[in-house]
Amino acid sequence: MTIHDLAGECKKASVFMAALSSDMKNRALSLIISSLQDNKDSIFSANKKDIKRAEKDNLDPSLVKRLKFDTGKLKETCEGIDSLILIEDPVGRTLNALELDKGLELYKISRPIGVIGVIFESRPDALVQIASLCLKSGNGILLKGGSEAKETNQILAGIISDAGIQAGLPEGWLGLLETREDVADMLGLDQYIDLIIPRGSNAFVKHIMDNTNIPVLGHADGICHLYIDKYADPGMAASLAKDGKCQYVAVCNATETILVHGDIADDMLPELQHTLEAEKVEIRGCDKTCAIIDVKMAREEDWKTEYLDYIVSIKIVDSLDQALEHINTYGSGHTDVIVTRDKNRALKFMDMADTADAFWNCSSRFSDGFRFGLGAEVGISTSKIHARGPMGMEGLMIYQWRLVGNGHKVADYTGKNAKPFSHEKLDKTFF
Amino acid sequence: MTIHDLAGECKKASVFMAALSSDMKNRALSLIISSLQDNKDSIFSANKKDIKRAEKDNLDPSLVKRLKFDTGKLKETCEGIDSLILIEDPVGRTLNALELDKGLELYKISRPIGVIGVIFESRPDALVQIASLCLKSGNGILLKGGSEAKETNQILAGIISDAGIQAGLPEGWLGLLETREDVADMLGLDQYIDLIIPRGSNAFVKHIMDNTNIPVLGHADGICHLYIDKYADPGMAASLAKDGKCQYVAVCNATETILVHGDIADDMLPELQHTLEAEKVEIRGCDKTCAIIDVKMAREEDWKTEYLDYIVSIKIVDSLDQALEHINTYGSGHTDVIVTRDKNRALKFMDMADTADAFWNCSSRFSDGFRFGLGAEVGISTSKIHARGPMGMEGLMIYQWRLVGNGHKVADYTGKNAKPFSHEKLDKTFF
Repeated sequence: MTIHDLAGECKKASVFMAALSSDMKNRALSLIISSLQDNKDSIFSANKKDIKRAEKDNLDPSLVKRLKFDTGKLKETCEGIDSLILIEDPVGRTLNALELDKGLELYKISRPIGVIGVIFESRPDALVQIASLCLKSGNGILLKGGSEAKETNQILAGIISDAGIQAGLPEGWLGLLETREDVADMLGLDQYIDLIIPRGSNAFVKHIMDNTNIPVLGHADGICHLYIDKYADPGMAASLAKDGKCQYVAVCNATETILVHGDIADDMLPELQHTLEAEKVEIRGCDKTCAIIDVKMAREEDWKTEYLDYIVSIKIVDSLDQALEHINTYGSGHTDVIVTRDKNRALKFMDMADTADAFWNCSSRFSDGFRFGLGAEVGISTSKIHARGPMGMEGLMIYQWRLVGNGHKVADYTGKNAKPFSHEKLDKTFF
Repeated sequence: MTIHDLAGECKKASVFMAALSSDMKNRALSLIISSLQDNKDSIFSANKKDIKRAEKDNLDPSLVKRLKFDTGKLKETCEGIDSLILIEDPVGRTLNALELDKGLELYKISRPIGVIGVIFESRPDALVQIASLCLKSGNGILLKGGSEAKETNQILAGIISDAGIQAGLPEGWLGLLETREDVADMLGLDQYIDLIIPRGSNAFVKHIMDNTNIPVLGHADGICHLYIDKYADPGMAASLAKDGKCQYVAVCNATETILVHGDIADDMLPELQHTLEAEKVEIRGCDKTCAIIDVKMAREEDWKTEYLDYIVSIKIVDSLDQALEHINTYGSGHTDVIVTRDKNRALKFMDMADTADAFWNCSSRFSDGFRFGLGAEVGISTSKIHARGPMGMEGLMIYQWRLVGNGHKVADYTGKNAKPFSHEKLDKTFF
């Protein structure tokens, strides 16, 4: 089947997906769990092939680790699906109800978006998670995972798709793309696909945006800043620098640049150096930083770099304004933190930092759907419309306006004897 | 100033726009009203030049009429700004508050999007409306109006921009683009512009989408359907056909295609013909329609056409499913109506019609921000993410996550002795 046909089928299926009952969707999720468990041996053996190939190709050990789909991962993944069964159906909620006039009632109702294309990294458990989120939210789904996991993805997608259809979902509700050419084909299919969610580097997300006119919700790099204000508690600042940088370096919410207010730099920098070098972090400082502590000089490139490693850049700023200017110039709009005891300066920082997650006196590493209580996470959006920051199932939803009348005509509400609109809020839900 | 510089200035200004107090924004809106009134003679004289040129160029009289900016329009426009002053500031609202743990509180706060580029048709009052909506919502704005109104647009943009700056808004908060080349330049400036809102034909919106990687919220054609079910009240159906088609033909929410269930076609079609021909509507029918009433034959092209005129196409369908298939194939996802007495068929129609506005027993012409009680309207979005259907100021907003702690570190919430998250809903607003 061509990608054109796959996407066309998925579009057709999405109309039915949008109208499924909650029971049907939950039955499908249950059947997916039991199907994954029943077929665990084939899944594990496909995964072993991927791991073997990855090791043969000398892939990075951290990548090989993420590829692994074993008993523990299967258990976690099934628990994730189970928790989706328990949550309320996000489709068909009444978001608003308004009487326009007697007998003419307007409802704003939550609805699935339609067909969603997700391009994600090598973790095969991401495939299961995204597919089940799309199912529960009534969307059709086209998936492209990392090619390193292709054997595992193939078998997982097959099991999930079949279990869904067996439970009553329409054929074609889930499509798997397998090659880069498939992705290139998908980007041209704006007649079928309503949203593309690419997860990866800034360059990758930009490449997708440059090559499609389908709306894109990017989940890209985090160049996250920790700004240590002149009214910061130095001990707290050093502790948040350590947690932000070192608690897990390979993730998008790790701190990459520390901005230090000039007034406290003489005391703060040695403390930062002591704390970070104890964790084997390489520090790259601006010229003023290098005049206070003995560290490597940062280049312009450093301010734009997501290290994802035990490296951090440090810059001295003269003021809160200069910190904001740096963040709004070099940041990626992901997560930025201020450490200060001064409430007004914290509020100004949050008001003027052009970022999805503006934090005060806590670690950048909290930026995460699970920690935010969103349940399963689609990713962390660095886009500025629709969904921003950690994105749960709500990001896969849109709304529809439903107007219910009894033969009401606009002609009666215009001209000289126009009837007025009441626009009274209704305290009721749609049928 | 180049468009690059104009957009760069607007981006800088947008950071300050996002942090303005409600008082400051309302003072700016008041000053814009008095400034427009003080300068009305220069505005009217600029407008006369546009009208004269339009008449000389033999533009369509309906277009010339839309160009007009006179005492009546000025009054209406100022009343519109006045009503914006009265409404609550949309920026900084607490949308959600959650305790993650003792002393670690997460807030979801409404925020402006940033810099918005709006490309709109020839009505100069649209410029005033869009600029004041962007001001109230704390966004920077780049505007491109119809070239037919260039003299009027220039003077209006100058007055509004100056009045804003005089009230304390940052320089560059409003930029006016004047040529098509300016628009082409703007489409490349994704580093400065966060959202483009084009209002116009489907072809125009598609052209914009094809030529930018800035997110686009399209406000395009309405190919709106009226489906007359077999359980419809024939009198109501004919009345809604007349209102949907004839009440105002030149607008996107006018009805363009009528689908009639085969079971009632023998009675319904003569009644439709009688009603519509009395209004001088030309009917183009499918072959089955032409076998029942004597009308022109519709071609494939007709199902894809937004007539914006006294023309309607009629097709007989065998079932509700076939009606839905036609709507989901040829519709533009704008507004689609079912006429039926059967609640379950109406609900199925709304669940399965892939459309922004799904109406039951009322006219497609109700699809409008004012009628929906949204206040001032940016347009009617035919996009499927962020904002759908009639779009008020809410469509110019996004949110920011704000996490407030007291030195909280992620390390304490991971590993063997991980502290649990409480995820308790907080009944409070952000500072």
